[in-house]
Amino acid sequence: MPSSSVIYLPVVKVREDEHIESSDALAIEEPLEIRLEYGPEDDRKTQNVSVTMRTPGSDAELSVGFLFTEGIISKKEDILSAEHHFIACAENKENVIRVSLKADVAPNLNNTERNFYTTSSCGVCGKASINAIRTVGTFDNRKDQNTVEASLLYQLPDLLAHHQHIFTATGGLHASALFSLSGELLLMREDVGRHNALDKLIGAALAQNMLPLNKHVLLLSGRASFELVQKAAMAGITIIAAVGAPSSLAVQLAEEFNITLIGFLRGQRFNIYTGLSRVIENTYENTH
Amino acid sequence: MPSSSVIYLPVVKVREDEHIESSDALAIEEPLEIRLEYGPEDDRKTQNVSVTMRTPGSDAELSVGFLFTEGIISKKEDILSAEHHFIACAENKENVIRVSLKADVAPNLNNTERNFYTTSSCGVCGKASINAIRTVGTFDNRKDQNTVEASLLYQLPDLLAHHQHIFTATGGLHASALFSLSGELLLMREDVGRHNALDKLIGAALAQNMLPLNKHVLLLSGRASFELVQKAAMAGITIIAAVGAPSSLAVQLAEEFNITLIGFLRGQRFNIYTGLSRVIENTYENTH
Repeated sequence: MPSSSVIYLPVVKVREDEHIESSDALAIEEPLEIRLEYGPEDDRKTQNVSVTMRTPGSDAELSVGFLFTEGIISKKEDILSAEHHFIACAENKENVIRVSLKADVAPNLNNTERNFYTTSSCGVCGKASINAIRTVGTFDNRKDQNTVEASLLYQLPDLLAHHQHIFTATGGLHASALFSLSGELLLMREDVGRHNALDKLIGAALAQNMLPLNKHVLLLSGRASFELVQKAAMAGITIIAAVGAPSSLAVQLAEEFNITLIGFLRGQRFNIYTGLSRVIENTYENTH
Repeated sequence: MPSSSVIYLPVVKVREDEHIESSDALAIEEPLEIRLEYGPEDDRKTQNVSVTMRTPGSDAELSVGFLFTEGIISKKEDILSAEHHFIACAENKENVIRVSLKADVAPNLNNTERNFYTTSSCGVCGKASINAIRTVGTFDNRKDQNTVEASLLYQLPDLLAHHQHIFTATGGLHASALFSLSGELLLMREDVGRHNALDKLIGAALAQNMLPLNKHVLLLSGRASFELVQKAAMAGITIIAAVGAPSSLAVQLAEEFNITLIGFLRGQRFNIYTGLSRVIENTYENTH
C-alpha cells in the first residue's frame, strides 16, 4: 500500500475499564483540487473543476477518471498530461493536479456543476437527471448479454478483502474492484470517498484502453448510490455488485441503462434488483 | 418513519441455489436543489446554492442546516421561510426548496463553493481549510470541559439502533443522533448521505434554539470525515462519537477545535483520538 495513504496517530484505546495508550493507522484524507487547462496554444485557459476530499495516491487516475465520468472529456486521447501542480505552500504539496488537454479538444464544461442536474431546464427530477446522462453517455449496454455465475459472485467479497490492504489497516476506506467474468481481480482502488475509489478505478481502466467495461463485474465495498451507478454507466459497466444496499434512484438508473444491479452480496446470498438475465445458475453444479 | 423515505421494489433474492421473487424496502434517494432568496424587497435575488442527493423528509431542516453549517447564514433569525418550490414537472414535486432570508440579511456566499477550500488563496491544504472554518465559526469550544462517562458511551449505538427505523428496514441509511450527557436521545435524523443526516439534525437543533451543542454527544452511525467534523464544529458540538473510523483530517480538525473525537465505538470499547479529558471512568464503578 502507498505510505501516503495511511498515517499513524496516537490514540487512547478504551476497553471496558482499561485505558491503553497506543497508536492507530488512519486513512489519510486531504483535499485535491482538479484544474483543467485547455484551449488553443495562444489562448490557454485554466479552470478549477472540482475540489474533492480524497486519499492521496493515484491522483492522475482520479482526476482523469473524474473528468471522464462527469462527461467533461470523452476519451483518453483528449489528454496531454495530468501532473501535480506545486503551489507556494509549505505543506501538502500534492493537493493540486493540473490536467492539460490537447489544443483542439473542447471540454464539455456545462456539466461541471455537481452531477448534471443543474444543466437541465427541469434540473432536479430523477427523469431529467437520467436523460442528461443518456445525452453524454458514450456506450450502449442495451444489447449486451454477457453472463456471470452466482457461485462466482459469492467469492468476490473475499477476493476483494484479501487485496484491500489499507482498509484492513484503517477500517476507513471504500473500495471499488473490477473482476473479469471468470473471477479474476483486474483492478482495485481505495479511497475515503466511494466516488473517488470508482473514479480512480475508471481512470486506470481508461489509461489501459479497457473501456467499455462490459465483460466485467464491478464490485463496490459499500452501498450503491445514484452517483456510483452513473459513473459506472459512463464507463460502459454492465454488472455492478454491491456489498451494501442500493438506493431507489440507483435501481432506477440501472434499469434505464440495462445494468445488472446486485446488492447485499454477503456469504452465499445476494439480491438482484435489475438485469436478472445476466446472472446464471452455477454451471458446475448443473453438470455434476 | 415517513413513507416518503422508503420505497418497495421487486427483487430476486438468491440464496445458494434458490431464487425467490420478492420485494425489498429501499431508501429513497432523490436530488434536492436548495435555492436561496435574499436582498432588499425591491431587488430580491435568487441563487441555487446546492444540489444534494438526499432521502426526502425534513427538507426544511436539511436546507437550513446546510446553510448554517456552510457558514452562509449565521442564525435562525436570518430566515423568513423555507418551503418547497413547485416546478412545472410531472414527477418529484418536492425536489426544490426555496429558503427566503429577511430583507436586511446578507448571506455569506463566498463559501458556496464546496467546502470552503476555494476561497483561500492557498485553497487546498488542510491548514488553510481549517483556518477558513475558524473565520466563519461562531462558537468557541476551547474552554468547554463537560464530561461523559465511558459506560454511557457504550450504550449509545444500541439506543440509536433502537430508533433507526429506516435503516432497519433498508440497510441503506446513515444516521446522526444527538444525546444529552446523561444518555437521553434528543434528536435523530437519517439520510442516504451522511452529511445530509447531520445537516438535518443541526437544522432541527437550530430551529429549537439548542445551539451551541456543547452539553451533548453527537453519535455518527458510520465513519467520521473532515466534512462531518467541520459541520459539527459549526454547531458548537464538543463530543463526537463515531461507530466507524475517523480520517486523518477529521482528527486534525477535531484537535484544532478542541473537540473530543471517538471512533470505533462498538460493544464495550472505543478509541479516543482527541480531547481525552472529556471522557471519564464510570462513576458508578468508582464509588462501589
